[in-house]
Formats: sequence, C-alpha cells, structure tokens
Amino acid sequence: MKQAIEFYFDFSSPYGYLGACLIDDLAARHGRTVDWHPILLGPVFQQSGNAPLVGQPLKGAYAVRDFPRMARYLNIPFTLPDPFPIATVAAARAFYWVKDRDPEQAVQLAKKLLNRFYVEGRDIGAAEAVLEVAQQCGIDTVALQAALGDPAIKARLKEEVDGAIAKGVCGSPFFIVDGEPFWGSDRLQQLEDWLKTGGW
Amino acid sequence: MKQAIEFYFDFSSPYGYLGACLIDDLAARHGRTVDWHPILLGPVFQQSGNAPLVGQPLKGAYAVRDFPRMARYLNIPFTLPDPFPIATVAAARAFYWVKDRDPEQAVQLAKKLLNRFYVEGRDIGAAEAVLEVAQQCGIDTVALQAALGDPAIKARLKEEVDGAIAKGVCGSPFFIVDGEPFWGSDRLQQLEDWLKTGGW
Repeated sequence: MKQAIEFYFDFSSPYGYLGACLIDDLAARHGRTVDWHPILLGPVFQQSGNAPLVGQPLKGAYAVRDFPRMARYLNIPFTLPDPFPIATVAAARAFYWVKDRDPEQAVQLAKKLLNRFYVEGRDIGAAEAVLEVAQQCGIDTVALQAALGDPAIKARLKEEVDGAIAKGVCGSPFFIVDGEPFWGSDRLQQLEDWLKTGGW
Repeated sequence: MKQAIEFYFDFSSPYGYLGACLIDDLAARHGRTVDWHPILLGPVFQQSGNAPLVGQPLKGAYAVRDFPRMARYLNIPFTLPDPFPIATVAAARAFYWVKDRDPEQAVQLAKKLLNRFYVEGRDIGAAEAVLEVAQQCGIDTVALQAALGDPAIKARLKEEVDGAIAKGVCGSPFFIVDGEPFWGSDRLQQLEDWLKTGGW
C-alpha cells in the first residue's frame, strides 16, 4: 500500500487553492490518495517570521499579478476575492470535525468552500458561510454548529497546525510524498516527477 | 528587434545561480538576448520586510534541502558554499565596471564567479577573490581594483538596485520579459511558454 500524499493548505491561500484543484488527479495518476490538511498560516508565519503575501511591499504586488496569471496558465478559474485575506479558523475546524466522521465528505466540503471563495468570490470567513456550504454537502449542520464552539475542535485544529509546523510545513500549498517535502503549486511538476521516478 | 530579457540576481542566491545557468540558452532558443543585472538582496529585503532564506525558521531548513534537489533536477552542479550567505558588493560592483566597458566580458566574469562559489565552493565575498577571477577573464585588474574603491562605482550599483526595486524586483532570480515579471528559477518553464505564446 503506497503512502498517501500529505497536502497542507490554508483556505485563504490562492496558491493553496490551485494545489487543491490539481493534487487529487495528480495523485490518482500514480495510484496514490491524498490526505488533506487545512492549516492556519498565521501560526506558521509566527514561527517563520513571515507575513501574508499581499500585504508585503514588492512581493504583494507580484503575488496579486501572479495569482491570476498562474491560474490562467493552469486553466483553473480564479478571481482574487474581496475581502482578502480572511480568517479561516471556522472553515478549518469544520473540515476536521467532518473528517473525523467522513474523510471524503470533508474533502468535498473543502472543495466547495474553495470554489465559493475563489470562483464565486463569496466570503467563507464566517461560521455562517461555512455552515451554509456544509448544508449543501448534506452535513448535519446543527451538530456542526455546536461543535464549532467546542474546545475539543479548537484543540483538534491546534494539534494539526502544530503537527504541520513540526513536519517543517512553511507555506501553502505544502506537500509531503514519502517524507519528501514540496512547497508551492509551482512544484507540482517536480512532485509528479518524484512519484514517477522515486526521486533523484 | 526583440527586447532583451532582464535578469536580476544576487551572487549569493543559489536559485539565482540556477537561473544564471539556464537563462542564456533559454533566451537564445527564442531569438532573445539577456541583460544581466546583479543586485543586492539586502536593500530589497529592507523594502519588502524579508530576510535571507537560510536564516529563517522553517523556510531555511526547506531551502537548504531544496537547493541541491532543484540543482539535481535541473542537472546543474551545485554545492552549498560555506560560508553562506556572503556579501556580494565587490562582485556586483566589479560586474558593472566591466559591463560599462564590455558587456560580454561582464557576463563571463559573472559566470566564473558563480562557478567558483557554487561548484568549487570557494568564497567570492572579498575583493581579492573577485580580482583573481577577473584576472582569469583577462580584465585589467589594476584599473578594476582602483575602481572598486571609487564612489562612482558605489553609486552605479546603488542606482541598479534602486532601479530593480522600482521595477518590482522582489527576489532572486527575477526576470522581466517584455514588461512581464517572473520570479524564481522554478518559473523558467512559464517564462519560456510566455516567449513561445506571447502570453496568456
């Protein structure tokens, strides 16, 4: 049994969205599955001393130009949402609550959330928005709403973020294939070549 | 007459070195020339709020693993030099002094400096090291040595760095093709596709 590809991303990362659109098909081409891990870049940046891209002088302007250009290059629909960036705590907590019950449904929820944010341009920051999308996935939103305020789910997400940092995750998207880390949606070709060849 | 590809890099940037190994041939495949611009990442980072990669928590560890992996992927000889990073003021100043007299010889000097640093693993920070390599290129090292202490060459390099920042250069390597910016040696495929197609 081949190991799953670990996929780390923040819902508020456009490059993470691009990675999310591509990684399942890429993995399937090589007989792999994907283990999705939404994280919060905030605590990662606290560790690494970085900050959200779009607020940075020079890099911010480049990123805002590069996001849609990269999406067009990959033939993926994309609009930079407004407001952006947003808090993604509710989305990530909801993901793990669902994942612990039905991993496939959690990925479906993540994809619908990303589509709403980057294709429809609608905010997914508030718990209400997350619950609305969860409802469309057939998730028990009464139980989910209650869970979102529960300390257990806060701890669950914190554990995931701490675990990602411990594995060296330094940005979004970040992939780990058989222990080998790849950072960035622009490294997917290398990641695929790694799967093909077993590494170099 | 097609515009030259503008190529910005810091001598102390491994990704810049990888770009330097590839950009001339890439440009030639599309009837382009390359205008080499060594810069100093220090002032760029002061503007953008960034810091050298290898000193950063998380990102530093990833970079140190990624540099040689990326080089092997591209089939380019590479060793992370020690000490690293280094000051590259002397190398960059020497480059522009030579460039103003003989642009091709300046590129030859740059390539030899990069080779000494990343292939032979020998420091190129000190003026003496730069002069030694310049001598191998047949450059008048007596005149160059005198020029390196001249305020004119300090001003020349400052102008280049300020000009790069004004154009949005936020890292190394950074390429501009017909006004379109590409950052990173991992974007060379996109840059080449841009040259082929005229953009998307």
